[in-house]
Amino acid sequence: MVGRLIHLMRDAKGHGCDLVVFPELALTTFFPRWFFERQEDIDFFFERDMPGPETQPLFDEAVRLEIGFQIGYAEAVVEDGRERRFNTSILVDKSGLIVSKYRKIHLPGHAAHEPERPFQHLEKRYFEVGNLSWPVVHAFGGLMGMCICNDRRWPETYRVMGLQGVEMVMLGYNTPVHNPPAPEHDRLGWFHNHLVMQSGAYQNGTWVVGVAKAGNEEGCELIGGSAIIAPTGEIVAQCVTSGDELIVARCDLDLCKPYKETIFNFAIHREPEQYRMIVERKGAVPPPKP
Amino acid sequence: MVGRLIHLMRDAKGHGCDLVVFPELALTTFFPRWFFERQEDIDFFFERDMPGPETQPLFDEAVRLEIGFQIGYAEAVVEDGRERRFNTSILVDKSGLIVSKYRKIHLPGHAAHEPERPFQHLEKRYFEVGNLSWPVVHAFGGLMGMCICNDRRWPETYRVMGLQGVEMVMLGYNTPVHNPPAPEHDRLGWFHNHLVMQSGAYQNGTWVVGVAKAGNEEGCELIGGSAIIAPTGEIVAQCVTSGDELIVARCDLDLCKPYKETIFNFAIHREPEQYRMIVERKGAVPPPKP
Repeated sequence: MVGRLIHLMRDAKGHGCDLVVFPELALTTFFPRWFFERQEDIDFFFERDMPGPETQPLFDEAVRLEIGFQIGYAEAVVEDGRERRFNTSILVDKSGLIVSKYRKIHLPGHAAHEPERPFQHLEKRYFEVGNLSWPVVHAFGGLMGMCICNDRRWPETYRVMGLQGVEMVMLGYNTPVHNPPAPEHDRLGWFHNHLVMQSGAYQNGTWVVGVAKAGNEEGCELIGGSAIIAPTGEIVAQCVTSGDELIVARCDLDLCKPYKETIFNFAIHREPEQYRMIVERKGAVPPPKP
Repeated sequence: MVGRLIHLMRDAKGHGCDLVVFPELALTTFFPRWFFERQEDIDFFFERDMPGPETQPLFDEAVRLEIGFQIGYAEAVVEDGRERRFNTSILVDKSGLIVSKYRKIHLPGHAAHEPERPFQHLEKRYFEVGNLSWPVVHAFGGLMGMCICNDRRWPETYRVMGLQGVEMVMLGYNTPVHNPPAPEHDRLGWFHNHLVMQSGAYQNGTWVVGVAKAGNEEGCELIGGSAIIAPTGEIVAQCVTSGDELIVARCDLDLCKPYKETIFNFAIHREPEQYRMIVERKGAVPPPKP
């Protein structure tokens, strides 16, 4: 995997890129599709050090090429005196320094083994909910944020970063073509993927870079459809294959300004007092019948 | 105006409709495009009673046809011991009863006269921010909500109704083709209009019915583009003219269920603790530079 990533990174450098965004859980398979009983079988997929012995060459190559990157991986860490596991992404600058870390908050799927499924979706079993909020940092000449996969379907994700002035949201995703709980929506996977990223971009005046694993992984078809989306909500670059594919865009962060300063000038137009239900209520509660 | 609305209502009845949705400020012109110095010139556009003498025939015809309707208008009311003005919409059932009222929360535009504009957008001058939240009520066999125009661009609007289990969001809008503060985005008016309503529908598993004034009103071109949007996010009916035009769809509210019960089962998948910034912060605040 590291070899493949280095190959793509060199390709990107050849196209003048400053920054490469890799998918969610880019170093391993999307292992939450399998139920493992033994913790050691799960731990096999987790990184304890970043960079570690296997990933150091990726960092070294980035420094050599003077290129930054964002990558997702499974993170195991001892924190608060206990073993913890997160679905994590990091942003690495051109000098090889980790300048931001995010731990996935919206874990989809289920926690219990559901043997009737051809593929599990056990993120709620193998990971804790992230504890770093959605960080936005100064890097690459702008304000850079991250989220992961299912986060992109939730407008709250983009808004928390929008409220920090984010100018580029980077995210990786692993979305199967087939969703067993609602197979009638499988035909809409591509549409929904772009719909949520495009509206998140427009409604916060930010670039969104969504990067998929694609094709067949361990017998599971993934939707692919990686896209680079402007603050206008328009897709400016899009993958069209299910193989390793580089897409490139020149992302002028100043294109965020007209939105942040006019229609989505939050300081003038938001009404936070009216949004309290968003934090005070978790599940939907219909009004009482009259 | 009432005559035009009655004509459209009869047309709708002929197509088997149970419910008609009319635009924002449907009884008058979109008067916030003009600066008036005298309060009596502003008050001319406001309703003090609903129904009042001019609007009673609309209610009478709805009862006769056994059809419900949603309509927007400028509301003047004495409340809390003072004169107050809101940009309001109401939902009227088949027996002519007002079963829900909404007062617009996201007032766009500006409060001061900007003489350099060909058209003003003085909603912040002529209206107060609504004080009825976004109500969701049992009516027409489901859970019905309302918002108005600019509200539709803010994901918080849909989410507050989604948290009440909303199955149909009705909204009217008056969106000019030309937006003086950011004319470079005029080409995207139609795209943004549908993007925000489609994502709001999908992300909350609800129908969205967006109804525009269209064509040329007092020299101002409006985008039109009324649409009926399914909980899948797909547009199932759409206006294609800038005249008075009826679009019809059979809206099966049960199509909301698969979304509300799987991918957007809020009780299982939302993380409200992580959303606090949405209510604790109004304007965007970038992180400090390192």
